[in-house]
Amino acid sequence: MTIETAIDRLRQRFGQRLTTSEAEREAHGQSESHFPVTLPDAVVYPESTAEVAELVEICAAEDCPLIGWGAGTSLEGHGLAVRGGVTVDFSRMAQVLELRPEDMVVRVQPGITRERLNEELRATGLFFPVDPGANASIGGMAMTRASGTTAVRYGTMRDNVAALELVTAAGDVIRTGTAARKSSAGYDLTALFVGSEGTLGLVTELTLRLHGQPEAVSTAVCAFPSTGAAVEAVVEAVQSGLPMARIELVDAATAEAVNAYSNADFPALPHLFVEFHGAPNAVAEEAARFEEIARDNGAETIRKATEAEERSRLWHMRHSAYWAILASRPGSRAIVTDVCVPISRLAEAIAATQEDLAAEGLAGPILGHVGDGNFHAILLLDGSEAERAAAERVNARMVERAQQMGGTATGEHGIGMGKLKHMQAEHGAGWAMMGAIKRALDPRDLFNPGKVVPQEG
Amino acid sequence: MTIETAIDRLRQRFGQRLTTSEAEREAHGQSESHFPVTLPDAVVYPESTAEVAELVEICAAEDCPLIGWGAGTSLEGHGLAVRGGVTVDFSRMAQVLELRPEDMVVRVQPGITRERLNEELRATGLFFPVDPGANASIGGMAMTRASGTTAVRYGTMRDNVAALELVTAAGDVIRTGTAARKSSAGYDLTALFVGSEGTLGLVTELTLRLHGQPEAVSTAVCAFPSTGAAVEAVVEAVQSGLPMARIELVDAATAEAVNAYSNADFPALPHLFVEFHGAPNAVAEEAARFEEIARDNGAETIRKATEAEERSRLWHMRHSAYWAILASRPGSRAIVTDVCVPISRLAEAIAATQEDLAAEGLAGPILGHVGDGNFHAILLLDGSEAERAAAERVNARMVERAQQMGGTATGEHGIGMGKLKHMQAEHGAGWAMMGAIKRALDPRDLFNPGKVVPQEG
Repeated sequence: MTIETAIDRLRQRFGQRLTTSEAEREAHGQSESHFPVTLPDAVVYPESTAEVAELVEICAAEDCPLIGWGAGTSLEGHGLAVRGGVTVDFSRMAQVLELRPEDMVVRVQPGITRERLNEELRATGLFFPVDPGANASIGGMAMTRASGTTAVRYGTMRDNVAALELVTAAGDVIRTGTAARKSSAGYDLTALFVGSEGTLGLVTELTLRLHGQPEAVSTAVCAFPSTGAAVEAVVEAVQSGLPMARIELVDAATAEAVNAYSNADFPALPHLFVEFHGAPNAVAEEAARFEEIARDNGAETIRKATEAEERSRLWHMRHSAYWAILASRPGSRAIVTDVCVPISRLAEAIAATQEDLAAEGLAGPILGHVGDGNFHAILLLDGSEAERAAAERVNARMVERAQQMGGTATGEHGIGMGKLKHMQAEHGAGWAMMGAIKRALDPRDLFNPGKVVPQEG
Repeated sequence: MTIETAIDRLRQRFGQRLTTSEAEREAHGQSESHFPVTLPDAVVYPESTAEVAELVEICAAEDCPLIGWGAGTSLEGHGLAVRGGVTVDFSRMAQVLELRPEDMVVRVQPGITRERLNEELRATGLFFPVDPGANASIGGMAMTRASGTTAVRYGTMRDNVAALELVTAAGDVIRTGTAARKSSAGYDLTALFVGSEGTLGLVTELTLRLHGQPEAVSTAVCAFPSTGAAVEAVVEAVQSGLPMARIELVDAATAEAVNAYSNADFPALPHLFVEFHGAPNAVAEEAARFEEIARDNGAETIRKATEAEERSRLWHMRHSAYWAILASRPGSRAIVTDVCVPISRLAEAIAATQEDLAAEGLAGPILGHVGDGNFHAILLLDGSEAERAAAERVNARMVERAQQMGGTATGEHGIGMGKLKHMQAEHGAGWAMMGAIKRALDPRDLFNPGKVVPQEG
């Protein structure tokens, strides 16, 4: 009963779709963030639900950990094989299985990326709205309960995953949820699995809710005299009930990094990127109301885009901001923070973060999905232990402050390796309850061990 | 270790707030539907979370079942003490604890009713949208994952409960969720408890999401030549993305019952009640688009109401429909069915139900929240065993058909006593997973035993 035996058995079954090559293991031992490379013992590429069930059975019999892998874009090291084992790469399970436009749902395999899915949907008049920036896999997005720029209007993966197919620790294939809009038929297993970071089972299919492509879209970019003024505008807009489809903050440092990276010419000021979706008249009315709120809060430059090409250019710049910030200091790695607070505390949370950064002398451009109260400081690391320690202090203070404000250590990136130490403070006895659920559904700690729940011993 | 000992200990602690009187036990042994009266051994009225924790500890030590009780409006016998024990009546825990209009959340105790809550919110410009018709308690609504007329726009209790405080089987008080808009910090315990029908713990506080009272509201009632035509109009409106706040079907039999009960003069035809919420221009535009769709589907009479008084009168009639149907056959009880199907199958599901009713010679007026694909046939029972058996057959066929269509046995009423027998077919191995979760969190089957999960022995 060893990992080695499991790998031997998997090799017999999966042939060349089981690999122990150094290169493949390294590719699946990396993280997009600052965590050390941690290699799995092998990587396997299943092609069907039945194959996933088979490999779960083999690994369960041999006590070999199984770690799901989508596009490798997570930021907290969720996919790192901290106790070894086999990484299950879903890139060969990346199909659209069934599109039902009349019910506004689509059934997909977990390996499909969100960009590919939306390409396949383009002709239908529907789209899948959840947009974390990175071209993540849908399975990975479900497992981290991802959200991003459009959650303020369309919700997170919690709201947009209707049903799942998954393989349990016993190797059973089960289906959670239905294709109906709602159900009161017992415990919400779909919601339990969304955000479970692969610790309760391996998801093999997802039924997603789709939304109509909006008739009209209007994007505006406004520059503000201060981050505080920009945040005040957001809070006013949210509280007045303006139905924003996106409302994003980038601070002055981020704007400068974007200018250098994307050859843009934003003033070196904090900006809000805002977007409205809907009927043409409604969108125009809403955009005008937002402009008024922005001007009342001192917005100095207003750029508008209703044409697809210009909008796409603006959002591409916003989505490239993380890479722009990394490029602003070549060779650096980053700790990407991810707190989320009640909107009434957002201005205070951002201001206190900026004070912490100044006090530590750290570069940490701030950007975020501020309509949800969610923001990130991208803490740039030069490799020195001192800077890393300072960044860890800033991150910890952000988390503790968010928790004290009634918020959370992670708005959308998940726990992974980085946030485990904050879960006791966040959940209290609720964290032990998560552990009890994990033990009930995965008693031998087969699925992504070392993550999410309290670790024994 | 007996129920008697538990009651003795509770009497010492709670004095006159623990009662074993026949009248009180009968009041908590009734159901609004067709289930036989089933008395608890006692009823207790806690006044605080600490008291709930105390009574859980006493009952856990004595192996005495605990059944939560809100307003007693559930339709599947959720609150019936099928294994005896103590009913925990939350009517003395019915306060608004904290209103945070700037974050659009309110923290309440479980015993507050939805009408009382909205009265307390009236001056704030905010409201709590979930509207199951009955003046249910918020705690009960959370436990059945209730929804109702507004779910098509505002979602169900799943979407509108942000956080919970609850007492576990060990007597621990835990908090799930935060006041932030979103979080990726581990398993979604809030979603797990919403819809759990009191089987995993006793909820002592809820943090609810509020919504802005709409600037303008427009209600319309349209009469259609057939149920099929009305449903087609709904399907078209949903698929065209019209943001309806409410879209309700009542069939011809229901319209006639409402006429008699509410002194109204609806034509003896199927009707849709539709409502739009938003900015005045948008609402007017949307209502006009709906009218067009209705007329294209043969709508014959159109009544409109933008004034609050007339709207309130219309919705009062809609909400009284269940009582109107009961009154249409004095002395009768009812089986209230509750299936939900993908919207593409709605017309077929309703038509097949009508055929079943005709074949059995049963009276079963149909109404429902058709924008969600959710509808109810109110199966009237005269007390004869033959009619009851026929009604059970119709209900079972409705459920099986909904499940075959990819829908659910219960859209919003929950499992309770009535739907337990359909859960294996609905969930397959997922039902055993629910049982594993129940055993992990409530190993001695303390909370509402006999409900939701597979029953042993």
